[in-house]
Amino acid sequence: MIYINEENIREIVRLEELMEAIEEAYIAYENNSFIMPDRIHINNKSNTLLYMPCITEKVFGTKMITVFPDNKNLNEPVIQGVMMLNDSVTGTPVCMINGASLTAYRTGAVGGVGLKYITPKHIKSIGVIGAGVQGYYQALYACKVRNIETINIFDLSLQSAQILKTKLQESIDNIVINISKSSSELLENSEAVYTCTTTNKPVLPDDKSLLENKYFIGIGSYKPDMREFPEKLFEVVEEVYVDTAFAKEETGDLITPLSKGWLKESQIKSISTIIKDKKQITKKTMLFKSVGMALFDIYTANAIYKKALEKGVGTKIKL
Amino acid sequence: MIYINEENIREIVRLEELMEAIEEAYIAYENNSFIMPDRIHINNKSNTLLYMPCITEKVFGTKMITVFPDNKNLNEPVIQGVMMLNDSVTGTPVCMINGASLTAYRTGAVGGVGLKYITPKHIKSIGVIGAGVQGYYQALYACKVRNIETINIFDLSLQSAQILKTKLQESIDNIVINISKSSSELLENSEAVYTCTTTNKPVLPDDKSLLENKYFIGIGSYKPDMREFPEKLFEVVEEVYVDTAFAKEETGDLITPLSKGWLKESQIKSISTIIKDKKQITKKTMLFKSVGMALFDIYTANAIYKKALEKGVGTKIKL
Repeated sequence: MIYINEENIREIVRLEELMEAIEEAYIAYENNSFIMPDRIHINNKSNTLLYMPCITEKVFGTKMITVFPDNKNLNEPVIQGVMMLNDSVTGTPVCMINGASLTAYRTGAVGGVGLKYITPKHIKSIGVIGAGVQGYYQALYACKVRNIETINIFDLSLQSAQILKTKLQESIDNIVINISKSSSELLENSEAVYTCTTTNKPVLPDDKSLLENKYFIGIGSYKPDMREFPEKLFEVVEEVYVDTAFAKEETGDLITPLSKGWLKESQIKSISTIIKDKKQITKKTMLFKSVGMALFDIYTANAIYKKALEKGVGTKIKL
Repeated sequence: MIYINEENIREIVRLEELMEAIEEAYIAYENNSFIMPDRIHINNKSNTLLYMPCITEKVFGTKMITVFPDNKNLNEPVIQGVMMLNDSVTGTPVCMINGASLTAYRTGAVGGVGLKYITPKHIKSIGVIGAGVQGYYQALYACKVRNIETINIFDLSLQSAQILKTKLQESIDNIVINISKSSSELLENSEAVYTCTTTNKPVLPDDKSLLENKYFIGIGSYKPDMREFPEKLFEVVEEVYVDTAFAKEETGDLITPLSKGWLKESQIKSISTIIKDKKQITKKTMLFKSVGMALFDIYTANAIYKKALEKGVGTKIKL
């Protein structure tokens, strides 16, 4: 077995390859060629253990994640864990990957693939609301998908925005990075906008004139009480694309609009159909919402594992 | 994080220490100081994935096991997997242990602790029915608990019995090892008998005169359709001790006798009470049945992990 940590991933993997893995996962999703049981949650006080198994024809495995909110105060990551891959013929564990790093890379790749399918090729500016881990990864992938010249950042914490700016400047060449004073200012200057927060109050201005003719990628809200998109957004979009059918039961960004009647279920479409058919969405105002699924993890993990084998990278472990 | 394989365990661990860990697990069980969700099963054709999480005050973790029956034909172990231990304050993975090895050691330790509490100190002979992995481990532990001079082995495959004999001779000094021609012959020559098969037809002779005044430790049957103990055994035992309350729902060795009326539920007792009170069971015919539980895994794994840290053993992994 080999163990692959974040450093290893960074060393060997091209972001384009992980986006290809995500597109393959979408095609497997469309073809229904997988077993993906519901996520298993175990709660202990404020802490959560999550098990996300997934079985495909070629590979199976499990992402095991711990969510310990108090880690913030201990200067430790809130989300930790490992992704285990098993040989599909014998079940033998063949690979483990740092679970937080895998999640960061695959979520970035899902956003990147979203951008590819919902925006025209010529866009040159993106905005990132929420300067956390995903703020960084979404921007990184966006620059591989489109010729981005400007990144706008907005975060309630100016310090976080500044840290992200520095980090992105170190990672991406020839890029202008601005810190916006408000989400309205960010929206004015960005063609496509990523929301990467866990807020329960919409982070975008509830202003039709600002929201129109923009491309939105919702990454943050993954629980019923979380919501990033404002009411008026649903007046300017005709359709909402989602990564998985169960998104409408998981995120407040769909649950609330559906229950308030701002959005009809018939307006929610699966992006996997578009990807399988190699189409492009060409609406002028567009919304893609991702909540993630174990199928993405398994395809991304397998791509990383294969690359690690090829490059001879990772810590070798005698079982 | 460190990874601990079978070689590492063999190098550093004394069997007595793992039996102490099992006794501590029993006390935690009695004190109800743990969270142990039901085992999670995922089936894919004939293969099974099992997740066994357990949370205690000091430590938590998960044993993840794959059961691939066709591995027999591929000369690969049917059961494989890993046990993961996490830091109880932060959730950080701190240790992984070969899951099959851990299971082998802990199941042996559970049998050893059973022997300690249900047999008098003077017994000198044991019998082992079923010459698989547990045939080996049960005998190994028995020799640490009592001054065993003779081990009798019975298996339907003479070759398996011979392989186990050789293996035990290499592992235990000053021991006489006989291969019995039948389970009746084994029973005649053994004071305590371990059953370590996955049969659905009782492996012991249905003969009261042979069964009386013997000590039985049931290790093998862990499913409703598996049964090692014959009907007459329930005429000669007054009480059946179990490792966990849910044993009566899991093994055919209790389900069948209960449903046929050979055994009353009031006759089933938890060995943990005896262990907590540091008592000894003194009946002349005695039956202990184990089905195992995640609490045993977590206590055994933690004992192995601590020892590995102390001895500086295991593969170091940068998360």
